[in-house]
Amino acid sequence: MNKKVTVGQKILSANEKYALENKRILAEEKKLCLNMISSPGSGKTTILTRTITDLKGKLNIGVIEGDVQTDLDAERIRATQAPAVQIETNGSCHLSAAQVNNALSKLPVSELDLVIIENVGNLVCPSAFELGENAKVAVLSVAEGDDKPIKYPSIFSKSKVMLISKIDLLYAVDFDIERAQNDALKLNKDIKIFPVSAKSGEGMENWYDWLCESVKSVKG
Amino acid sequence: MNKKVTVGQKILSANEKYALENKRILAEEKKLCLNMISSPGSGKTTILTRTITDLKGKLNIGVIEGDVQTDLDAERIRATQAPAVQIETNGSCHLSAAQVNNALSKLPVSELDLVIIENVGNLVCPSAFELGENAKVAVLSVAEGDDKPIKYPSIFSKSKVMLISKIDLLYAVDFDIERAQNDALKLNKDIKIFPVSAKSGEGMENWYDWLCESVKSVKG
Repeated sequence: MNKKVTVGQKILSANEKYALENKRILAEEKKLCLNMISSPGSGKTTILTRTITDLKGKLNIGVIEGDVQTDLDAERIRATQAPAVQIETNGSCHLSAAQVNNALSKLPVSELDLVIIENVGNLVCPSAFELGENAKVAVLSVAEGDDKPIKYPSIFSKSKVMLISKIDLLYAVDFDIERAQNDALKLNKDIKIFPVSAKSGEGMENWYDWLCESVKSVKG
Repeated sequence: MNKKVTVGQKILSANEKYALENKRILAEEKKLCLNMISSPGSGKTTILTRTITDLKGKLNIGVIEGDVQTDLDAERIRATQAPAVQIETNGSCHLSAAQVNNALSKLPVSELDLVIIENVGNLVCPSAFELGENAKVAVLSVAEGDDKPIKYPSIFSKSKVMLISKIDLLYAVDFDIERAQNDALKLNKDIKIFPVSAKSGEGMENWYDWLCESVKSVKG
């Protein structure tokens, strides 16, 4: 049997097909979508709950929560009154675009300004799977050490934003902010870097400004 | 063509075959081998450098260092004069038993009491790949949050030891040691839990005692 293959046409994986479909849905609705990636315990959920609360009335944020097990994080998001859909991956180390596609159908997307996907806590695998997002946001807590950008370059190369989190702990740990920033910029000269503390609120305004501007530019 | 299949015989994956081969080598030499697993930045390398230094003259420790990129960690181990072999996985999220097999051939195993494998920083994937170790050691830093055992149950279910690290930061973070301990024990009633600080040295003696006893019991 002969099969005709169009030269130059990329054969898409199932994940890429769903990612494109998610991108199409979000573009049609003119919604910004962010894919937040970090190690376990870098403070993603705390950043999100504070962001949702502080921007109430300014931005309507919906959240897709990825976790290996439990829906503890979605419960924390729902306590802020924001809509949240939990995806339990049951052992899998990253979210897939198909899972996000399903979660999007459960969110009131048209009423939102912004969808934030909190990926599974893992600094390695999630960076390899497009979900249809406009941008990846890498989170690195100062408790993890300033050597992480060079040790885990993939996610820092691919992200539009790096949040250096838990800066309220800077006094207690050995973390050279300049080193982490310079190493991230060497990998990715356009990355925006915001040192923040979701506990004290320090630095969060810069992150909020970036969010509001990015939402605006997607709305057009 | 007919193929004879022995009923009940498990078909081993390539990884399982290498893991068995590593187990055989280590058992023949009567060496204890530990597979240390945690998130990035939980302090595995710092725990190792302090352990090697404090146990100098008591235990000869060799290290296999797994990292996605760079040999920074192996350099830190070599600074203690202990032999260390670096495996750079070039993006892969866990060590394989074949990589460890190759690394074992480069270590002076017969001169050591103990081989410690520091896996890639990742709380999800490495727990699924046996490397031929006698025991897994999970490390959880207090900066990561006390909800990690229930959110990432696989590694805590499979480990013989949980080190709760960076307890020098307990005063600065919200981490309920009892909750983390109880959740880990619910998953794994036999897990040994040692709260430690490799910075201040607090609690390290309990970990050293466990190491010395385990080395002794493998030597027989």
